[in-house]
Amino acid sequence: MVKSIKKSHNLYMDYAASVEANPSSIHSFGIEAKKKLQNARMTVAGALFVRPEEIIFTSGGTESNNLAIQGTVLKFWELSSHVGAKLPKLPHIITTNIEHPSVLETFKMLAERKLATISIVLVEETGIVDPEKIKKEIKKNTVLISVHYANNEIGVIQPIKEISKVIRHYKKTHLTPSPLSLARRGVGERFPIFHTDAVQAANYLDLNVARLGVDMLTLSGSKIEGAGRVGALYKKKSVLLAKIFGGGDQEMGLRPGTENLLEILKFSDALKSAQKIKEKESKKLTKLRDYFINKINYSNILENIGIVLNGDMKNRLPNNVNITIPNIPSDLLVIELSVRGIMASAKSACKSGDGKASYVIQAVNPKVKETDGSLRFSLGRETTKADVNYTVKSLSEILTKLKKWYS
Amino acid sequence: MVKSIKKSHNLYMDYAASVEANPSSIHSFGIEAKKKLQNARMTVAGALFVRPEEIIFTSGGTESNNLAIQGTVLKFWELSSHVGAKLPKLPHIITTNIEHPSVLETFKMLAERKLATISIVLVEETGIVDPEKIKKEIKKNTVLISVHYANNEIGVIQPIKEISKVIRHYKKTHLTPSPLSLARRGVGERFPIFHTDAVQAANYLDLNVARLGVDMLTLSGSKIEGAGRVGALYKKKSVLLAKIFGGGDQEMGLRPGTENLLEILKFSDALKSAQKIKEKESKKLTKLRDYFINKINYSNILENIGIVLNGDMKNRLPNNVNITIPNIPSDLLVIELSVRGIMASAKSACKSGDGKASYVIQAVNPKVKETDGSLRFSLGRETTKADVNYTVKSLSEILTKLKKWYS
Repeated sequence: MVKSIKKSHNLYMDYAASVEANPSSIHSFGIEAKKKLQNARMTVAGALFVRPEEIIFTSGGTESNNLAIQGTVLKFWELSSHVGAKLPKLPHIITTNIEHPSVLETFKMLAERKLATISIVLVEETGIVDPEKIKKEIKKNTVLISVHYANNEIGVIQPIKEISKVIRHYKKTHLTPSPLSLARRGVGERFPIFHTDAVQAANYLDLNVARLGVDMLTLSGSKIEGAGRVGALYKKKSVLLAKIFGGGDQEMGLRPGTENLLEILKFSDALKSAQKIKEKESKKLTKLRDYFINKINYSNILENIGIVLNGDMKNRLPNNVNITIPNIPSDLLVIELSVRGIMASAKSACKSGDGKASYVIQAVNPKVKETDGSLRFSLGRETTKADVNYTVKSLSEILTKLKKWYS
Repeated sequence: MVKSIKKSHNLYMDYAASVEANPSSIHSFGIEAKKKLQNARMTVAGALFVRPEEIIFTSGGTESNNLAIQGTVLKFWELSSHVGAKLPKLPHIITTNIEHPSVLETFKMLAERKLATISIVLVEETGIVDPEKIKKEIKKNTVLISVHYANNEIGVIQPIKEISKVIRHYKKTHLTPSPLSLARRGVGERFPIFHTDAVQAANYLDLNVARLGVDMLTLSGSKIEGAGRVGALYKKKSVLLAKIFGGGDQEMGLRPGTENLLEILKFSDALKSAQKIKEKESKKLTKLRDYFINKINYSNILENIGIVLNGDMKNRLPNNVNITIPNIPSDLLVIELSVRGIMASAKSACKSGDGKASYVIQAVNPKVKETDGSLRFSLGRETTKADVNYTVKSLSEILTKLKKWYS
């Protein structure tokens, strides 16, 4: 209950809806909350140059990716079970072998559950996927292609526009079905639908979805400074999705559950700020990243050890440095750095601690052995040249110490 | 990056994992975060008298309910497709007709997707479900029974212990299968599994799951004062669930995605505080609720209008008052109250604005017409007697004004 009740009679008797104002309530607190939610939706839509009703707020990047992928496949089943599909029974979906686990594991899950057949295209040694290889995998029952915008471990940037061109050309030269052509009405975005996970890209890359040519795009607050812990999915109006949760009618009927308003507001504000400083930050961090890489390349001790830089050097996020160090376990390197106050990581946090080598590093560096270590340094707004110097110096010390035991 | 870097070298180079510390990272920031997460898990486990590894953090009540229900059904399919089930092909699940949409719609979704057959047991006119009616619905392919602890609209409390007794008796007298007996190893909690949505109960009722006799229990932060916007699912160790999201290995492998640590900490703290003051608050609010109900019953103007109190008067949440007012639309009543500074609601916020009468009120009050209005007042820690007096006075004024047009 608000403190001013005695004077103004603002008397909250809707604790069962939510202890905070619920945007779905129709009393004035609810309407105020709804306005704020709508403003946040407009801000996020503005960053992507789309319409507000094309933005669905979720609990995070993992949920957004699942909604895009599972939602497309389940919608296919929903409609085809209603009418008797003309398509081959199983829908087909395509992705690459270095996607985030929330994409790759969702693909595998759908295959295991016999809801879809999947093609996993191998990226080149640069970490970049060849659009022609995706083209070769498209079949007449392909309903979705999901390729991330930038990789979370090695930071390589995928040729989203070129992949989009390939898909559009396929649609132009083939009579591809749409979800509702299954229901014999022929509306809805035609297959294959193109989704990109842009979680790692939001701080630095162009988010204009029309320019990119994507039908769905995933964002997450957890990778944007100052943002709340929520996610969003852009879904072009013509794309039809099925719910993955049963429940209320929130978020255009696609994401039940009371909206996490406070976190959504923090997310939309932070996304807006990040877009404003994007160019400046990208330039600054690109310089710092290249300084970092040069330092590693020309440091004596590091040179002798045979460090490999992972991923394409040009098409790469401004803040990412990823290296492989022969014969020293990743976790040991992370802990040694941590002791010196430097927080880096071995691989995706979502897959840390499973004791296995990173599947991303293995994909781009076929010579990497299980006994080799990898390190990802990802820089942020406050990282300085002095930080980089200290990090390279510390790394040299660590490797000098460890190479006696591991060589 | 922490501010103290220049002095102590705390240098964050893991922005790609998360702009805040990620509990899955193995550097010292990550380990610190992991400790906090584990403490929060122990606090929540303590409130339910269970083991920490039996608590799964989710994005909210809707997701917890979906994970419990979809997770059980999908696990059934996962295992039976691996081995060739001995059970009839479709699993069967049971619930009641006044559950929250996140349960009821999930049931309907599973039926539509032909993943399960469902039984929806009708509650009595008190709003309370008869355990014997649930018993009658149990079949040899029943894998799950989901009955909420307390209703979100009319606040009635369900006889969870009695339902549990019925289920245990069924298990004792029938050789019910377990998920892994499908895989011919005979371990895992035997079917039917008993789940309760305790979202509305957490502030006031006993949460000792052993005493309640439930195998899974849903909690949500959004209904607990001071709590973060996350949810939790208690899952007895022997209960086997399938993931509903593909992704990383967080939360015992059952809920991928970076944990929302800050909100989880707020949730566990608030749950702990709520448990401490539960008895005192319940007593205080029960008195206030009964004062409110008496006021309505004996107010002249209200009496003449034929107001009906919905739901059992005894087995009811201490903070819930729900009334039906003949011939006046709910939304108009909510707005008239809102103008006077009183935030109440017509029905579940998750179903507000769809222009339909509440399915919960229709279930307990078969005489209710589409043109009748309903109001839910839910009280909180700061609600006072003066607030109640003002509310009843305002309601009288509103009804005096409106009854000229609606009678």
